[in-house]
Amino acid sequence: MNMKTVLIVCDGMADRPTRALKGLTPLQAAHVPTFDRIASLSECGIMDLISPGQPPGSDTAHLAIFGYDPEKYYSGRGAYEALGAGIDLKPGDVAFRCNFATVNEEGVIIDRRAGRISSEEAKILAEALKDIELEDVKSIFISTTEHRGVLVLRGEKLSRMVSDVDLHKTGVKIEKPIPLDSSEEAKRTAKILEEFITKAKKVLEEHELNKERVARGLRPANILLPRGAGTMPNVKNIEEVWGIKGAAIAGGALYKGVAKALGFKLINVPGATGGLDTNLKGKVDYTINALKEYDLVFLHIKATDTVSHDKDPVKKKEVVEWISRELTPLIDLVEDRGYYLVLTADHTTPSEVGDHRGDPVPIAIMGPDVRRDSVERFDEISCAKGGLNRIRGIDLMKILMNYLGKVPLFGE
Amino acid sequence: MNMKTVLIVCDGMADRPTRALKGLTPLQAAHVPTFDRIASLSECGIMDLISPGQPPGSDTAHLAIFGYDPEKYYSGRGAYEALGAGIDLKPGDVAFRCNFATVNEEGVIIDRRAGRISSEEAKILAEALKDIELEDVKSIFISTTEHRGVLVLRGEKLSRMVSDVDLHKTGVKIEKPIPLDSSEEAKRTAKILEEFITKAKKVLEEHELNKERVARGLRPANILLPRGAGTMPNVKNIEEVWGIKGAAIAGGALYKGVAKALGFKLINVPGATGGLDTNLKGKVDYTINALKEYDLVFLHIKATDTVSHDKDPVKKKEVVEWISRELTPLIDLVEDRGYYLVLTADHTTPSEVGDHRGDPVPIAIMGPDVRRDSVERFDEISCAKGGLNRIRGIDLMKILMNYLGKVPLFGE
Repeated sequence: MNMKTVLIVCDGMADRPTRALKGLTPLQAAHVPTFDRIASLSECGIMDLISPGQPPGSDTAHLAIFGYDPEKYYSGRGAYEALGAGIDLKPGDVAFRCNFATVNEEGVIIDRRAGRISSEEAKILAEALKDIELEDVKSIFISTTEHRGVLVLRGEKLSRMVSDVDLHKTGVKIEKPIPLDSSEEAKRTAKILEEFITKAKKVLEEHELNKERVARGLRPANILLPRGAGTMPNVKNIEEVWGIKGAAIAGGALYKGVAKALGFKLINVPGATGGLDTNLKGKVDYTINALKEYDLVFLHIKATDTVSHDKDPVKKKEVVEWISRELTPLIDLVEDRGYYLVLTADHTTPSEVGDHRGDPVPIAIMGPDVRRDSVERFDEISCAKGGLNRIRGIDLMKILMNYLGKVPLFGE
Repeated sequence: MNMKTVLIVCDGMADRPTRALKGLTPLQAAHVPTFDRIASLSECGIMDLISPGQPPGSDTAHLAIFGYDPEKYYSGRGAYEALGAGIDLKPGDVAFRCNFATVNEEGVIIDRRAGRISSEEAKILAEALKDIELEDVKSIFISTTEHRGVLVLRGEKLSRMVSDVDLHKTGVKIEKPIPLDSSEEAKRTAKILEEFITKAKKVLEEHELNKERVARGLRPANILLPRGAGTMPNVKNIEEVWGIKGAAIAGGALYKGVAKALGFKLINVPGATGGLDTNLKGKVDYTINALKEYDLVFLHIKATDTVSHDKDPVKKKEVVEWISRELTPLIDLVEDRGYYLVLTADHTTPSEVGDHRGDPVPIAIMGPDVRRDSVERFDEISCAKGGLNRIRGIDLMKILMNYLGKVPLFGE
């Protein structure tokens, strides 16, 4: 029998008790009958994506969830952004996540998102950045959504050991990229990156669109801030490791990129934006459809993280309720067919903090062979009483593949 | 005070929900008052023998339970089979578990157990295999129970890096052993093993007993299929590590062998077969008796695994009930004397699958100093709510030795 598994990751869904919800987490406060149905049919637990107390990035968390130890295989965020944006990244390339931003005449960063420039305008600017000539290295720049973009440096002797230019701070002077180790490659890459930033700045400053923005009273996108230098991870893909075919349904470039790097087929859903306006119904429909062809379907939902970063626990509760509702037809199908399904988060983003934290996340694994426990609510505290107890992110894939009979014996 | 501990391992006892038992595991469905008494007096939990989701072999699982990290110390199954069969294995020897099997004239394996040949007949054939001459290497072959036997190659420059000839498959042509690394030793060992198989085949084919078997309409034991090449593990024994004297009571050669390799004294119980017909009452009596002299008595019960491989959940429930009943006098004594006792399994063998899986096993640790929790039933799901939470096999010995005050401080 060809057993199927759905892996649902609601980004940053796990939370802490909030004042706005009278000491409850958004999951605890929410009315989420479908989530609770999943919990009832599951073995539940809590999961440290990396290790107890360690706040994970979205990239390292997803590597772990897919069974790749981030301590071994993490090679920077930029690579996943590039892959997710559709760039055919090659071994040796160094990729950067970039923000269109605004600096003043003293070189002080006054807006890391260039007045939240629209995707359309960013695309026009990106077009002008295509022809930047660098000494014996090729640059590839594309914009993705709003102020976000990806830069790839392609050439000989490059290194990802260069510092972030975007330090997630405003009101500070922009700093030059510096090499992070003593290699010639890192020195060279830092120099090339600096050259790119300088040349890009000139192009942006002279661009008609920016002049127009200033005339309209908007902030010009007059600089690119790279960060998260990354290279292609050197890993066996999931088909080689487990003999399964995986598909990924996600809005955000990063999640697509991680999945693509590991051999998942990306399935694009019209209107899947990675935002609050995403076409969640469509994503669920496409997930159901993908189960016909793929063994493991990864469904990523970003909205929970977005409202967490906006520090809005009440809105997060509503988003959770919306997700629970929209998942219903998928859960019906999984239960009916006797498939496996995982519901979890990739990190805790406390909605009173607005940033990733290292608290564990709730997890439920439902399927025909799981040892169902007595947990009947899907939230951070109820799941901690479940039969899975406390696992690590890196354990999840093997636990699933064990149910599918795909883990070879160690010993005899 | 000289504190005593009993370590009871019911092989493959842990299971999954089964249809035959209306969604319960055999342990959940069973009436096991003595097991439940143990749980009530214990701190309970679940245990991953190796790591979450990783199916363990019986050999690696027992190494872990005894406190030896199998990632470091596992050196093949064959060594344990040889030690358990009473062979005085020496450093440098390479040992193999062997099956008497049946091949047809085209060399296709048609029965991996030679028509379940009896121990008596196998012994007669083994006698004829004693005199096989190999070039500058000595071979030792003995039969153990039924179709099972052990081969030891003794000589210079041998390696355990040779492939299994028994691939657990029938209907396929027998394959030659091949070296598993590029060393001269592995090449040489593969060649010698092939020579042994060829010469043994000739002896077996010409043996009167096999001719008689064919005449009686039985399958001839006309080939030996080696597997699990192993060498003596290079470890400190438990007395050196912990300063305790250990005894082992087990039917199966493998379990005896692991225990012996680690310094346990083997206590042979008349009628302890490792089968469903084993003299369990005798094993329990001998365990009680061994506690007079030994600090740690390991009691291994194989029957739970046998019925699991036979895919019989209902029978497994009955076997579990039988074991619980027979253990009663031992538990009475342990409770009365204030000794420690562990009840657990070495792996999950789902009785609907019939093979090892990587789900955790339930564990109960009873004794005067344990923090008793509220678990009152010994089964996979009840124990998961216990005070031990989720531990690893490699943790168990230190947890026990901690109660005995035998673990030195780390730091001051």
